[in-house]
Amino acid sequence: MAKAWHLERRPRGLPGNEDFALKAIDLPDLAEGQIRVANRWLSVDPYMRGRMNDVKSYVPPFQLGEPMQGGAVGEVVESKAEGFARGDLVQHMEGWRDEAVVDASRAQKLPDIGVPEQAFLGQLGMPGMTGYFGLLSVAEAKPGDTVFVSAAAGAVGSTVVQVAKAKGMTVIGSAGGKEKCDWVRSLGADRMIDYKAGTSVVKALMEAAPDGIDVYFDNVGGDHLDAALAVANERARFAICGMIDIYNSAEPTELRYIARIIGARIRLQGFIVSDFLSRMAEFYRDMGEWTKAGKLQREETVVEGLEKMPDAFLGLFSGRNMGKMLVRL
Amino acid sequence: MAKAWHLERRPRGLPGNEDFALKAIDLPDLAEGQIRVANRWLSVDPYMRGRMNDVKSYVPPFQLGEPMQGGAVGEVVESKAEGFARGDLVQHMEGWRDEAVVDASRAQKLPDIGVPEQAFLGQLGMPGMTGYFGLLSVAEAKPGDTVFVSAAAGAVGSTVVQVAKAKGMTVIGSAGGKEKCDWVRSLGADRMIDYKAGTSVVKALMEAAPDGIDVYFDNVGGDHLDAALAVANERARFAICGMIDIYNSAEPTELRYIARIIGARIRLQGFIVSDFLSRMAEFYRDMGEWTKAGKLQREETVVEGLEKMPDAFLGLFSGRNMGKMLVRL
Repeated sequence: MAKAWHLERRPRGLPGNEDFALKAIDLPDLAEGQIRVANRWLSVDPYMRGRMNDVKSYVPPFQLGEPMQGGAVGEVVESKAEGFARGDLVQHMEGWRDEAVVDASRAQKLPDIGVPEQAFLGQLGMPGMTGYFGLLSVAEAKPGDTVFVSAAAGAVGSTVVQVAKAKGMTVIGSAGGKEKCDWVRSLGADRMIDYKAGTSVVKALMEAAPDGIDVYFDNVGGDHLDAALAVANERARFAICGMIDIYNSAEPTELRYIARIIGARIRLQGFIVSDFLSRMAEFYRDMGEWTKAGKLQREETVVEGLEKMPDAFLGLFSGRNMGKMLVRL
Repeated sequence: MAKAWHLERRPRGLPGNEDFALKAIDLPDLAEGQIRVANRWLSVDPYMRGRMNDVKSYVPPFQLGEPMQGGAVGEVVESKAEGFARGDLVQHMEGWRDEAVVDASRAQKLPDIGVPEQAFLGQLGMPGMTGYFGLLSVAEAKPGDTVFVSAAAGAVGSTVVQVAKAKGMTVIGSAGGKEKCDWVRSLGADRMIDYKAGTSVVKALMEAAPDGIDVYFDNVGGDHLDAALAVANERARFAICGMIDIYNSAEPTELRYIARIIGARIRLQGFIVSDFLSRMAEFYRDMGEWTKAGKLQREETVVEGLEKMPDAFLGLFSGRNMGKMLVRL
């Protein structure tokens, strides 16, 4: 019997285990054009927190009492869809469960570009695309720019660091703790800020970026966004990707340096990765090339077993992951 | 003997009269290429508050113990510059004084487009250009857009309202008090928010803009910016022109709706009017045409006498002006 995590209550603030329940689900027989997938890897991502609220947004909210959705990689175990056969590896959006019936039109076979299957939930998937297009298209980062990226040890941030270095930029990253900072340095970051080290982010960034920053890739919001505003050069571009600091908070964001937007002519631009789905070929071309050239490193934090999935999700908000946070079934 | 207002102390928070002193100045004999101007109109503008702080910005700070500068319109009383003769009316940046010696290269003769001379410090000057280019170029506002503009009864805001209406947009303005709101309505604004009426700006804007806003022209910051974030439509563009709410404050700006930048893909773009000086012809062409067609109205709040200039300046921060605040000598 297949099982799926259901949203039982809409969390206020930080979610707890009692907001979720793992329950059996009835999977239908396959209709024409469908495949049955045994999931092997499930993705947890910060944006899922937003779907737990009952507000209109760019993705619809999870329904109360219903199974949740999310990225997944699995193996086709039964197919009534042309072009899909038993044993094919696919990615799809029916995650948070061990087995799924999926319209084949909403699943993609994994391209063969020499990376492990779970990379398609991380660096070669949505998080990677988010970093790649956010940096190059939204922030229009150019060789020679100084780029600041927060949550630089995360799935998105670590991609930003490596794409920026591959393109000849100077990179300042921020992460929590020495281990993460060391890892991001090993990816090529020129300077790192350990935001858990006790210095205010604005002070640390002023020291790390004496000549200012041209680009800020925001995964955090709050004090990181404020620090970036404080040191931004003229015509700096901010790609606003996430604000993990406030997803669980009812407190307003306090910005002391926001008026610098005016005199420095700063641009803040929000974006979501699905705006760039039509340009996926570009992404695979560059990332595939850099992968072959050994320019891309990946890290994963793997939690074992479906029953641990809420723990994995909650770990995102306490910074427990280095690189991509995954659940292995 | 000529007199000029000097900056005596750098104000903290709201400036007071004791921060300024009116003192005699020695004006030199004219060098080749210079003109002597008897000022008739002096401009006070919110951006001058920034120049009273000792921080690097897009305009250098006023020097302590020295005369201040600002927009002025006056009559040439002596000329050693080709093309300038006694009796010519000019605008220049040696304001905060009754008489000035100016390099003719830094003065402009007033074009004859059928408006009173002091209009070149307001709707046909920097404030007008700020509104015009901020709306049309920075925010890329298009016919059919719904535009929200704060401080809509000010020199910049009232231009934004009228340019937007001339271009076929829907306009929601905000101003303090019934008199100002009525005046902005008379300029063509479709709906007005009286921010002094007791309702929160976000609530008032949600009611005034049930279909959201496509453009926000920010003169105020703070709660107005937050309200605009709350109701912004997908791909809304914000032209960030000023934040009068915080010029005199050490408190951070609190934003509850800033994460909407991401899902709604909002763009915030700061700007300053001097970036558009090369496009002045465009501005005079459109504004001259609308003036002739009777589509532009102007309002002025005039304070009489050089000795009252600090009062006029401080009045900007208590909302004492309707339209452009001017000092007449």
